[in-house]
Amino acid sequence: MGDCFEEIAAGLAAVARGFHARGWLLGTSGNLSAVVQREPLQIAMSPSCVDKGELCAEQLLSIDENARIIGQQGGKPSDESLLHIRIVNERGAGAVLHTHSIWNTILSDLYAVDGGIKIEGYEMLKGLQGVRTHEHAEWLPIVENSQDMPALAETIAATLNQHKAAHGFLLRRHGLYSWGENLAQAKRHIEILEFLLEAIGRTSNMRNHSR
Amino acid sequence: MGDCFEEIAAGLAAVARGFHARGWLLGTSGNLSAVVQREPLQIAMSPSCVDKGELCAEQLLSIDENARIIGQQGGKPSDESLLHIRIVNERGAGAVLHTHSIWNTILSDLYAVDGGIKIEGYEMLKGLQGVRTHEHAEWLPIVENSQDMPALAETIAATLNQHKAAHGFLLRRHGLYSWGENLAQAKRHIEILEFLLEAIGRTSNMRNHSR
Amino acid sequence: MGDCFEEIAAGLAAVARGFHARGWLLGTSGNLSAVVQREPLQIAMSPSCVDKGELCAEQLLSIDENARIIGQQGGKPSDESLLHIRIVNERGAGAVLHTHSIWNTILSDLYAVDGGIKIEGYEMLKGLQGVRTHEHAEWLPIVENSQDMPALAETIAATLNQHKAAHGFLLRRHGLYSWGENLAQAKRHIEILEFLLEAIGRTSNMRNHSR
Amino acid sequence: MGDCFEEIAAGLAAVARGFHARGWLLGTSGNLSAVVQREPLQIAMSPSCVDKGELCAEQLLSIDENARIIGQQGGKPSDESLLHIRIVNERGAGAVLHTHSIWNTILSDLYAVDGGIKIEGYEMLKGLQGVRTHEHAEWLPIVENSQDMPALAETIAATLNQHKAAHGFLLRRHGLYSWGENLAQAKRHIEILEFLLEAIGRTSNMRNHSR
Repeated sequence: MGDCFEEIAAGLAAVARGFHARGWLLGTSGNLSAVVQREPLQIAMSPSCVDKGELCAEQLLSIDENARIIGQQGGKPSDESLLHIRIVNERGAGAVLHTHSIWNTILSDLYAVDGGIKIEGYEMLKGLQGVRTHEHAEWLPIVENSQDMPALAETIAATLNQHKAAHGFLLRRHGLYSWGENLAQAKRHIEILEFLLEAIGRTSNMRNHSR
Repeated sequence: MGDCFEEIAAGLAAVARGFHARGWLLGTSGNLSAVVQREPLQIAMSPSCVDKGELCAEQLLSIDENARIIGQQGGKPSDESLLHIRIVNERGAGAVLHTHSIWNTILSDLYAVDGGIKIEGYEMLKGLQGVRTHEHAEWLPIVENSQDMPALAETIAATLNQHKAAHGFLLRRHGLYSWGENLAQAKRHIEILEFLLEAIGRTSNMRNHSR
Repeated sequence: MGDCFEEIAAGLAAVARGFHARGWLLGTSGNLSAVVQREPLQIAMSPSCVDKGELCAEQLLSIDENARIIGQQGGKPSDESLLHIRIVNERGAGAVLHTHSIWNTILSDLYAVDGGIKIEGYEMLKGLQGVRTHEHAEWLPIVENSQDMPALAETIAATLNQHKAAHGFLLRRHGLYSWGENLAQAKRHIEILEFLLEAIGRTSNMRNHSR
Repeated sequence: MGDCFEEIAAGLAAVARGFHARGWLLGTSGNLSAVVQREPLQIAMSPSCVDKGELCAEQLLSIDENARIIGQQGGKPSDESLLHIRIVNERGAGAVLHTHSIWNTILSDLYAVDGGIKIEGYEMLKGLQGVRTHEHAEWLPIVENSQDMPALAETIAATLNQHKAAHGFLLRRHGLYSWGENLAQAKRHIEILEFLLEAIGRTSNMRNHSR
């Protein structure tokens, strides 16, 4: 699969180990992908049921647009590969990352009744691609969780179309998805959204909002 | 004791150091074991009163079904070895891990009056062996703490028989036990249960449940 | 630019990686600088939009008193370079550090109505340069956030002049600035102020203030 | 000063770096010591105003019973050396450790009105030397903070004599002191007391004590 795949796989593995250390990929949860080639689509995808704290480049799998493994590799791609492929197609993303953190899990449930979380007024928002000011209002949609991956992929596609400016979305009581033009940008977006969710969660938990 | 013991011991030591870094095995607390051989039973067991942040493979002890050291090794196996052996026998486990985290300590007390904690509706539950959907309801039993190890082993055996689907249990104001077919699975189960306990603890602590 | 620049750049990169690990520079946020030479002013400045967890000495940029790059380097200095230069000039600082932590973000908003936070009675205050007793009262001013850097630099200069004893200040919903005679002192000030902000935030959040 | 000093110094430096990583020694706060020789007393003491995250064995200072540097070393021993010496003499300790954590800072203030914190019913207590059961009740005295080190040393000596079973004490809004027969035991005691303080702090902060 060439040098390109190996370099991308090494990058994904390094991000996985770093996010596991932060507690965002515990218990083999979460998954990571990056586009190797567009035509035809080839994606480097993290395998199912592997400890992300010990993920190494050799474990990354190469899959096609239908989430089928390309070539002779063993291993099973993540169940959520279809969601990654859909995000790649809908957003033209070069990398897609999915984390299970304490704060994204909690807020995805508390704000589900609203259908999403509005994040507004934080300097950190400027780290999201295309955002120029802290006055930006980011809407992070929340999608109901499901085990029916093809159906969930459709729901996500519809959500992405409805919220064209969104840099990520939450699956309820499940986790956060974000993406970027490349792996560095996707990692930046995850770090920013995780930070903002924790800030919002802890703020709403303060005893005295006006101190 | 052969290559097998050494490899298992190295794996246990690595898990111990990682969990200590997360604050789950502070102050020499907690213990870890894995089955080396079934007939007759031989278990690699962490020693008593050792800093888990510096545990190395050479410190792991080989014990038999009565928690007696096999061979010439020095050191003292953990006081809770009898509990590990009982779990191995009751569940056919290949590895047993016991952590003392802040959140498992707090929740084991707050929920003791209910006899356990029901964990339901989280995607993370799918990381528990045999669970296929986030709609799964896991019952994590809570057992009163005791210093009488033989008696505690009996109580635990009765609890495990009563809750055949449980992937772990809590000792009140003491800690979490979980296990797996092998060390990787046991580590996965601990990470998932610790994550879910923290998520539940922080959620129940939010000021506005419906936001 | 000589050995001096390289040594200073290596120090800044090491601090950046350490603060990123603590979650104070997530998502390429925050920035760091240190004075290389006073007459004419030459500052080693962190580049814009770079992952601080992977910052290396070669990426630090050399800028002049107008935030223009000196020499042939590529890269773009941080947008907030003007603020660093202003602090260097107003305070005679040898290093300026700016972090985005959860607690500085939250408190910069909760206390904005007061114009600042009074920190008093903590032993940790003695780590601030010139403070001899925990009875010291530190006033940490809060400045409204803005994307107009020249205007913000003026506001900050006025704030520094008004609060001549302040060891740092907060930008609302943005982050913390602190500085020192050299990088080690600036790092110490950031660690102390971050610690005190977290202690204050968690204390004000306790259910029973008098227990 | 011989191999013994060097080995002890290396041990203290390693503990310092580990505790700094946990956020218990931020901003050059805290200090560490271990007895090298009893007659006459020689103690390896951490220097004043040094970054504990980068402490190396060569920086440890050798001091006598009056906190004066032995031999030709440069550097200044910690201001709190007199407190360490007093604890060594009162308790026959082989090592004394002092940490500034978020939770010890908060609880030392909230419980000051009671003169101390009773810690009872936790399995973790068994990690304190001589404690055989979780039913143990540990009284952790709280002493008012002061910058008058000789006077504070007297107050601490009186407190230690009044509470002969105590494994540590808190200085109000300042930090935790604990000790042990040797460095490993002192480290164990700090980890256990820090864990228990965090557990108590977070429990008292839960919205529903009975859930």
